[in-house]
Amino acid sequence: MGRKRFKDFKMTHIEKHLKSSDFITDIVIGMSDGLTVPFALAAGLSGAVSSNNIVITAGIAEIVAGCIAMGLGGYLAGKTELEHYQSELKREFAEVENIPEKEIEEVKEIFAEYGIDEDGQTLLAVQLSKNKSKWVDFMMKFELGLEQPNPNRARNSALTIGLSYFVGGLLPLMAYFFTSTPHNGLLVSSIITTICLFFFGYFKSKITGQSPFKGALKVTSIGLIAAAAAYFVAIGFNFLSRIY
Amino acid sequence: MGRKRFKDFKMTHIEKHLKSSDFITDIVIGMSDGLTVPFALAAGLSGAVSSNNIVITAGIAEIVAGCIAMGLGGYLAGKTELEHYQSELKREFAEVENIPEKEIEEVKEIFAEYGIDEDGQTLLAVQLSKNKSKWVDFMMKFELGLEQPNPNRARNSALTIGLSYFVGGLLPLMAYFFTSTPHNGLLVSSIITTICLFFFGYFKSKITGQSPFKGALKVTSIGLIAAAAAYFVAIGFNFLSRIY
Repeated sequence: MGRKRFKDFKMTHIEKHLKSSDFITDIVIGMSDGLTVPFALAAGLSGAVSSNNIVITAGIAEIVAGCIAMGLGGYLAGKTELEHYQSELKREFAEVENIPEKEIEEVKEIFAEYGIDEDGQTLLAVQLSKNKSKWVDFMMKFELGLEQPNPNRARNSALTIGLSYFVGGLLPLMAYFFTSTPHNGLLVSSIITTICLFFFGYFKSKITGQSPFKGALKVTSIGLIAAAAAYFVAIGFNFLSRIY
Repeated sequence: MGRKRFKDFKMTHIEKHLKSSDFITDIVIGMSDGLTVPFALAAGLSGAVSSNNIVITAGIAEIVAGCIAMGLGGYLAGKTELEHYQSELKREFAEVENIPEKEIEEVKEIFAEYGIDEDGQTLLAVQLSKNKSKWVDFMMKFELGLEQPNPNRARNSALTIGLSYFVGGLLPLMAYFFTSTPHNGLLVSSIITTICLFFFGYFKSKITGQSPFKGALKVTSIGLIAAAAAYFVAIGFNFLSRIY
């Protein structure tokens, strides 16, 4: 294998690592929803009310609610992940301590699946069982598929998701501050948000290793479809409630 | 180990399996946000507008927007996961084909980490490399930590998350249909939603193996905090916009 080829493989490995960056994942989670839902809500209301103030009030209420729900949600999800990991870790230690023969069987089963023969299985199981802490690590990862979560992840996750949602949500709403009717607000907001969604989708896809243009189109479509649906449903509901 | 003990361990294994059920995870994702955000938005608007119709219109627009954003978001996330798996699978096949000596080194490194000696590492690497398809499966799981996603996951996920959000969002909003002022609507909505959040949090925690009461309190607090924050921010904004 030539040097260039090796460099490619190395970069691929770095890329793989980047793909799972928690920080970027959190920004993407917060920003995707932040750019989409408040925008669509504002669009929906623009078809049904006559005052920018109501659109902005609803938009701000939504952003605050979404921020807290997503941020606190992210915090608790992170905490739960950590607690879950720790309780499983404790359980695996107990199993290795109390029923080692069953755990050895489990190790063997894992390797049997990949075509390792009886001798190989036994050799591995014996060597693994010499160091209980490594044995438990092995079971955590390969039997249960769990990796040790970062203990600060919960708090960081909450802040990042919440803040990203906030920033993402304010962008579409800004248009209603500087226009006089919901109709004009919607027009400006749609232009701002379409551009933001496109760039966001582009970079998100680039970072996660997907095709950037395809990704940008996907993200933009979701935002516009959500806004169009909210708009027509709100107009429809408003129309019906005036008749009855 | 007695029979009872063994049964406990077996049930634990079933429970572990249930914990990662995609279907339940999707319901929880959709329902958590659905019960929280539309409720908080409606609460926020109740403090700032005088007509139930506006609260309901905004609530419906939000539910539609959230449904589509989360559902389509879930769909695309599932698709991306599948594409990611397939492209990594192709890459691993190419690596095993073109640079087997490097992949053998990687296998050895993986086992070295768990205290397997040089002889054991070589034995495993040789046996694994006999069956390329199993070797690739092994690298996918043990090097990259990737498991084959269910190909229908994307579509199912979209439907489940979207629908759960819809159901979760309509519950708090119903109160505004049957009351005459936003103030009364908020009162009834808060009672309905607090009960729903509590039960939802209780069952969610039970299913995911957390303490049910603690979980119920957590979920209920997030919803009420989000609603209270949205309410006060909306009142504050409305107050300021009347002065200026």
